[in-house]
Amino acid sequence: MGSHQKGEHGGSSNGSGGGAVVVDKGVDFAQYFCTYAFLYHQKEMLSDRVRMDAYFNAIFENKHHFNGKTVLDVGTGSGILAIWSAQAGARKVYAVEATKMSEHARTIVKAHNLQDVVEVLEGSVEDVTLPEKVDVIISEWMGYFLLRESMFDSVICARDRWLKPGGVMYPSHARMWMAPIRSGLGDQKKSDYDGAMDDWSAFLEDTKEHYGFDMSVLTKPFSEEQRKYYLQTSLWQNLHPHQVIGTAAIIKEIDCLTATVNDILKVTSNSISSITLENTRLSGFGGWFDVHFRGSKVNPAQQEIELTTAPSINNGTHWGQQVFLLHPHIDISEGDDLSLSFTMNRSKENHRLMEVELECEVKRSSGKQLPPFRNKFYIE
Amino acid sequence: MGSHQKGEHGGSSNGSGGGAVVVDKGVDFAQYFCTYAFLYHQKEMLSDRVRMDAYFNAIFENKHHFNGKTVLDVGTGSGILAIWSAQAGARKVYAVEATKMSEHARTIVKAHNLQDVVEVLEGSVEDVTLPEKVDVIISEWMGYFLLRESMFDSVICARDRWLKPGGVMYPSHARMWMAPIRSGLGDQKKSDYDGAMDDWSAFLEDTKEHYGFDMSVLTKPFSEEQRKYYLQTSLWQNLHPHQVIGTAAIIKEIDCLTATVNDILKVTSNSISSITLENTRLSGFGGWFDVHFRGSKVNPAQQEIELTTAPSINNGTHWGQQVFLLHPHIDISEGDDLSLSFTMNRSKENHRLMEVELECEVKRSSGKQLPPFRNKFYIE
Repeated sequence: MGSHQKGEHGGSSNGSGGGAVVVDKGVDFAQYFCTYAFLYHQKEMLSDRVRMDAYFNAIFENKHHFNGKTVLDVGTGSGILAIWSAQAGARKVYAVEATKMSEHARTIVKAHNLQDVVEVLEGSVEDVTLPEKVDVIISEWMGYFLLRESMFDSVICARDRWLKPGGVMYPSHARMWMAPIRSGLGDQKKSDYDGAMDDWSAFLEDTKEHYGFDMSVLTKPFSEEQRKYYLQTSLWQNLHPHQVIGTAAIIKEIDCLTATVNDILKVTSNSISSITLENTRLSGFGGWFDVHFRGSKVNPAQQEIELTTAPSINNGTHWGQQVFLLHPHIDISEGDDLSLSFTMNRSKENHRLMEVELECEVKRSSGKQLPPFRNKFYIE
Repeated sequence: MGSHQKGEHGGSSNGSGGGAVVVDKGVDFAQYFCTYAFLYHQKEMLSDRVRMDAYFNAIFENKHHFNGKTVLDVGTGSGILAIWSAQAGARKVYAVEATKMSEHARTIVKAHNLQDVVEVLEGSVEDVTLPEKVDVIISEWMGYFLLRESMFDSVICARDRWLKPGGVMYPSHARMWMAPIRSGLGDQKKSDYDGAMDDWSAFLEDTKEHYGFDMSVLTKPFSEEQRKYYLQTSLWQNLHPHQVIGTAAIIKEIDCLTATVNDILKVTSNSISSITLENTRLSGFGGWFDVHFRGSKVNPAQQEIELTTAPSINNGTHWGQQVFLLHPHIDISEGDDLSLSFTMNRSKENHRLMEVELECEVKRSSGKQLPPFRNKFYIE
C-alpha cells in the first residue's frame, strides 16, 4: 500500500533477518504505522479499483486455494482481504493488524457475520502468536516502487513463522520496472530550486544588513538541503504512457515464497534501454512494479492474475510511479541506447525509506558515447 | 517557534515536573525535534522580522543584563541569540541545541570569531551539563498560541537547573489572548466536510455493489475522523484586525521566572467578550500570544520590549493566530456579550499537542441569553 511519509530521524530494529538494522518500535509506530489507523487512508486504498479488482479476482478465481483452508492476512487494515478469503471458503482466517484499525476490521467482520471464521488480531505480525500454521498468506504489502515502506520484511517473517510447507503466497511474485521518460517537471523543479537559492541570497543580504548576522557559511549546506528536496527526491506521478520514451527493463524479480530480507536489502541492476521516440528529451526515469498471483509450482493458480502499476491511461493506481529526474535533461532520439546501472539501499535514518544511485551512459545511434553520469536520489 | 507537526501516537516522558507524562525520547525526536534540523525551517524563523527585531532590541537595548555576564540560550538553532548575547558583551554563552543544527551554529559562531565566548552544546537542555550557573536564560520557545510544542517545559527545567538566584529570563513574561472573530473559512470547512461525507456515501455504495463488501458500520467513526479533521482542528491563520469582532481577553499569564510545569499543564479561563461590530457573525475565536522582556523586579530591563502576535496588517509573524471555528456561525451584533470558558490540556498521545474545550454563552443586548454550547478542538 502506498502511503506518504516524512523521512525523519529514527533508529531501527525489526529482528527479521540477517543484516537488518535495529528498529525502535515506538519510533516506527509514530512514523509509519500510525498513518494506517486513519479511515481516510483505508478508503483511499479501497477506492483503488485496479488494486481491489486484482485481489478480488485472484481470490475468487482461485477458490481451490481457499476452500476449507487456513489463511493469514498480514496487515488486514479494514479486513477486506480476510473477509474475501472467508467468502471464498476458508475454514479460518487470521487477520493481523498493527494499528487500532483492527477494531474497525473486527466490527466489519461481525457485520458480515464472519466472526467464527475471521479472527482479527491486533499487533505486529512479528509478535503475534497463531494457534496453527496456515495454507495461505495473503497481504497487500507493496509500497511506492514496490519496496518503499519495507513491509515485505513483515510478510517474509510471517511466512517463515506461519506458512505450512507447500503453502502459497498471495501475491506469489513481484517485479520492479524502470524506463526512460520525458517530463515537464524537471524544468519546474529546477526553477523551484533556483528560486529557493535566489531567496536565500536575498535573505543572507537582508540578515547581514539588518542584524550584522552573516550566515554565508551556510550557503553550501543550505543548497545541499534544497538540492535534495527539489532535485533529488523522487516524485509521485501518474505517468501517461506517452511519457515513456524507451523500452522498460525489469530491475528486480522476487519469488515471494523464497525471498529473504537479505535479497531485498540492496537492489542492484544493470540494464539497457533503447529509445523509441524520435527527437525527444530524456528527463529522467520512471519506476513502478507489478505483482502476480500464480500460486506455487506444486499448487498453482487456476487463473493467474496480474496487478501492474505501469503507466496507463485508464488503469492508473494510487501507487502511481516514482519519477527520478535529471538536471538538465538530455536531448535524445530513437536509436539511442541507455546503459543503466541502478542501486537501491535502505536509508540509514529510516529503514522504510530508500536511497538510489543511478548511473547512465548514453550511446548515440551514431555510435558516439556520452560520458556516463551518476545521480543520487532519495525515496522519501 | 511555530512549526508544523503531525499529531501522532507516542508515549511520553520528560521528567521535568510533577504530573508530566513519560516521554519516549526517540519518538519525541522523530516527531518533534527533527523538523528543526532543517535550514529551511531556521530560515523561515529568521525571516520573521517582527520576531527578530524584538529579540534584537530586547538584547541590545538592555546590554546591562549581558555585559560581562553568563548566558544560556535554550534551543539555539542557528545560534543567532547566542551570538547577539556575545556581541552585547556577555563573558560566556552556552548555546544548547538538540539537533544537528548545532553543527551549523558552531560554524556560524566561528565565522563571527566568537568561539571563545559562545560554546555550542549538542543535546537536550534536560541532559546537558554546564560548568557553571548563568545570569541570563534566553530562549525563543513559543509555539503556536504560545504553548503548542510544550517547549517552555525545557526552559523551566533549564531555569531550575542553571539560573543563578537573581538571574533574569528573556523573555520574562508571556500571555495568551483570545477574541471572537468572523471568517469565511467556517463555511468552507463545513463544505469540505460535507463533500467528504458525500464522497464516503458514494464509496460505500460502490464498494457494496462492486464487491459485496459493506462498510456502513464505519460511517460513524469515519464521520468522527473527518469532523475532527475539518471542523475541530484549529487552523493557522494570519487574521486581519477587521476580523476581530469583539474585545480580546487575556486567558493566561505566565511569569517565566516562577512558573512551574504544573502551572501550564492545564490552562483554564473564564472571560467576557463584548461584541464591537454591528450585524456581524461569530465564526469562532482567534487565539494568539505576546511575550515581554522586562527583566526581573530586582534587575529590571532599562528598555521593556514587547513581542506580540496579535492580528496585524503590517506586523504579522510566522506564528499567525490559531483559529477555532464554530459550525454553524452565530449571528451577532454590537452590544451582545459572550461568556467564554476556555480549557486547554495536553493531548494524551502527544504532550506537545493540545486539546481545547470552549464553552460559550451568548447574551444578547436585549438581555436574552442563548443556550450555552460547548465545542472540542484539537491543536495539532
